[in-house]
Amino acid sequence: MTDETTHRRSGGRAARQAARAHLHAQSVPFLTRKLAPFEVLDEEGLSLIEENADTILAEVGVEFRGDAEALETLRNAGADVQGERVRFPRGMCRSIVQASAPREFIQHARNPERSVRIGGANTVFAPAYGSPFVRDLDNGRRYASIEDFRNFVKLAYTSPFLHHSGGTVCEPVDLPVNKRHFDMVEAHIRYSDKPFMGSVTAPSRAQDTVDMARIVFGADYMEDHAVLLSLVNASSPLVWDASMLGAARTYALANQATLVTPFILAGAMAPVTVAGASAQTLAEALAGMAFVQLVRPGAPMVFGSFASSISMQSGAPTFGTPEPALVLYVMAALARRLGVPFRSGGSLCASKVPDAQAAYESAATLQPTVLAGVNFVLHAAGWLEGGLTMGYEKFILDADQCGMMGVFVNGVDMSENGQALDAIRANEPGQHFLGSAHTLANFETAFYRSDLADNNSFEQWLEDGSLDAAQRANTVWKKMLAEYQQPALDPGVDEELTAFIARRKAEFPDSDT
Amino acid sequence: MTDETTHRRSGGRAARQAARAHLHAQSVPFLTRKLAPFEVLDEEGLSLIEENADTILAEVGVEFRGDAEALETLRNAGADVQGERVRFPRGMCRSIVQASAPREFIQHARNPERSVRIGGANTVFAPAYGSPFVRDLDNGRRYASIEDFRNFVKLAYTSPFLHHSGGTVCEPVDLPVNKRHFDMVEAHIRYSDKPFMGSVTAPSRAQDTVDMARIVFGADYMEDHAVLLSLVNASSPLVWDASMLGAARTYALANQATLVTPFILAGAMAPVTVAGASAQTLAEALAGMAFVQLVRPGAPMVFGSFASSISMQSGAPTFGTPEPALVLYVMAALARRLGVPFRSGGSLCASKVPDAQAAYESAATLQPTVLAGVNFVLHAAGWLEGGLTMGYEKFILDADQCGMMGVFVNGVDMSENGQALDAIRANEPGQHFLGSAHTLANFETAFYRSDLADNNSFEQWLEDGSLDAAQRANTVWKKMLAEYQQPALDPGVDEELTAFIARRKAEFPDSDT
Repeated sequence: MTDETTHRRSGGRAARQAARAHLHAQSVPFLTRKLAPFEVLDEEGLSLIEENADTILAEVGVEFRGDAEALETLRNAGADVQGERVRFPRGMCRSIVQASAPREFIQHARNPERSVRIGGANTVFAPAYGSPFVRDLDNGRRYASIEDFRNFVKLAYTSPFLHHSGGTVCEPVDLPVNKRHFDMVEAHIRYSDKPFMGSVTAPSRAQDTVDMARIVFGADYMEDHAVLLSLVNASSPLVWDASMLGAARTYALANQATLVTPFILAGAMAPVTVAGASAQTLAEALAGMAFVQLVRPGAPMVFGSFASSISMQSGAPTFGTPEPALVLYVMAALARRLGVPFRSGGSLCASKVPDAQAAYESAATLQPTVLAGVNFVLHAAGWLEGGLTMGYEKFILDADQCGMMGVFVNGVDMSENGQALDAIRANEPGQHFLGSAHTLANFETAFYRSDLADNNSFEQWLEDGSLDAAQRANTVWKKMLAEYQQPALDPGVDEELTAFIARRKAEFPDSDT
Repeated sequence: MTDETTHRRSGGRAARQAARAHLHAQSVPFLTRKLAPFEVLDEEGLSLIEENADTILAEVGVEFRGDAEALETLRNAGADVQGERVRFPRGMCRSIVQASAPREFIQHARNPERSVRIGGANTVFAPAYGSPFVRDLDNGRRYASIEDFRNFVKLAYTSPFLHHSGGTVCEPVDLPVNKRHFDMVEAHIRYSDKPFMGSVTAPSRAQDTVDMARIVFGADYMEDHAVLLSLVNASSPLVWDASMLGAARTYALANQATLVTPFILAGAMAPVTVAGASAQTLAEALAGMAFVQLVRPGAPMVFGSFASSISMQSGAPTFGTPEPALVLYVMAALARRLGVPFRSGGSLCASKVPDAQAAYESAATLQPTVLAGVNFVLHAAGWLEGGLTMGYEKFILDADQCGMMGVFVNGVDMSENGQALDAIRANEPGQHFLGSAHTLANFETAFYRSDLADNNSFEQWLEDGSLDAAQRANTVWKKMLAEYQQPALDPGVDEELTAFIARRKAEFPDSDT
């Protein structure tokens, strides 16, 4: 045994119980980073990508499909519209965005203590979005149901490290496609008091979301307060389609926020190179954001980038590789230069199970997400299998990492207590600090305390059943659901919401499209 | 299924075989970072920590234990020596180090193509060090043997992503303590041609290492070429002990390199705060480095920092938490200001098995390691259970991550091909890039290609046996060992080395201390 081998002391049952009972001192409604973002390109490189995006917008253009009103809006603003192809004079989109888009905004929650500030030095973590499947250790992989959906809303509500209830935390495929948005939005309102996302699969569903939110927040209040944040994705390369444009328009007209996000797997929807995929992402986002600002100048809006790579052998999407991390850093810098909030990243992976691949890949996205200064992090917890599956254990594992990020972004405490010079002065060489007055004074907040990591001795770990991290996470989510307590909802709101959903569901037949 | 759900295409058998046959285009003898390091403290904060380190050195001092010669050396240089306590006038250690320590140096390998440049913008990955146990999926956890040692030397030699053979890649506990260094050094020389580390557990064993290296490299050559890099650790807080001082002296006199490393679990060997642990680390390292430079001015040397935290509940060491990442960033910045190469980080974890905990924790150290600009990364692959165990599967998983870092540090390619503007111009909106000329031209090098990650469809993954990452890694290391080919060794060297070891082993009886 050599010098770099560390030695363990078994904590004993009491210590472990104390650890479990520990309240998360770090719980905050959102993170505020004290560290400057990491940069991978200099001014010259970033300018070049901006110029290339302008070239793409001017020469190739973007197709706005199936939405004559959008084409009219863009033509009136000075774009060159030929059929559905829209070409933008250099600098036009940037000017439109910079003229009216807010640099940051608050998304209000029905519990004001949970409202989040999106933009600037702030970071908001939201659950993964959009998976048709769920997975847990007990039942394996299966289609998601509304019960799963509610479970993930409850878990995100209970976790001190997720700041947002998210949107389609999984697809409740047991409900009709054309009505499930009522149950999803209802679940966010009823089972959580954190801010949430609305439906985007059709303009009418976006309008239902707005109408439900008005029951909770009031129509007047929503005229100048964002309470919804919804995801509108480009159909990359260089296409915006009718359903997304319609949803974006609906939300913008209601002065509600959207994430305007090119969704790019480089090699498939964009060139394979970092600089190429970045320029195209910027072009698509600029076109989408300009449209939103033309619909309603000043509507809150987030510049989004979802970028990963594909396997050049099989065409399968890959996650956690180095190239998308570089794209993420570049896009975050471009968003700062543009002066709008930025969405990207998350805990992305291709792994089917919450194993070492899942964790490595997720960390390889989540760390750049935080270091790049992303403002809104969709997919921060639960993502498995390229987004096809929402994992119960993965959710718990990821949330723990989000908690660690919350400590990291606070940077180094340079107060007198942080410097601890007196503690070192009072301590003889060779004497440990376990009983030092400084250690005891900082006991509670000294280090991030994971409820999930096993740091015990090998022998203790054996005695505890040789569980791996996923098995421990399995216990955690069950405990969280068992102890879940529903936040109170105003009875009048409750009644009105129930009546609205019943009435709307009765107005048209179920359909699976 | 919603817009952010990714879709898979099964690659088919041929594609998977092609992927396996893929040669790692990224293999280089060491990394050269093109990205500026991430900073967590400004000039003012870093200066304050430097001042505090000077205060510690001047007021508290450092104990140099059991080495009268060291005390004499330090007294002659102007330190205040009282018993074994050595206090340094403010700025003294820094002046000594800056007067003669090289800013960077080459550690020469017996294969010149494998020599590594340590310092500056370069990063070198070396295997984990010092574990008494090994673990693999087939046989679980067990005491390490010389066979395991040789296996890990072979694996590090075979991996394109490890640049260094390391040192005590595991403890061969089947050999007598006082002779196992012969077999360890021999294994590094015989089974690899990458650079390696020497014994530090006693000055005589350091001398044996130097003598064995002289057989390979020649005594004259070693007078002005570093071929050994060895790990000397402080006994924190604020103690340097006799065996480490003796080893450091032996290597310095032979003009061979040392990693001068305070080994700190904050809360036990240092205050619980980042700034406090950092100031103490700097003080200990400065004292050790000044000693080395006094022994032989100009001897190559690396400023080391091994810092993690402990569980305040159980006292157990913890890894991958945010506070040690902050210490790492601070120490790397301090080393740059001092002007010496820096060692820290690795793929550290507390997990007993290569699960999600292991991967998350390892990534939470390895990413800061790379972003901070660490020059020499011990423990880059294999580390489990706080360093008590070297894992075969963990080694493979970590090496893959090291490979990804090799791509990341190259930053963004802003060449015309990188910008890919013509590819975007040539592509219609809505049309994928899979068949684009640009994609085909960049097919081989477009993305980092993991041999380990499973990116296939869920159905393909099921058909392939539902393996997790550790199970796939199990196949990989066995294949690497099965296909291992020993690098040629000059027959004269071989004979002399064998004779030296036999003679030295016969000179004194076996002992287990």
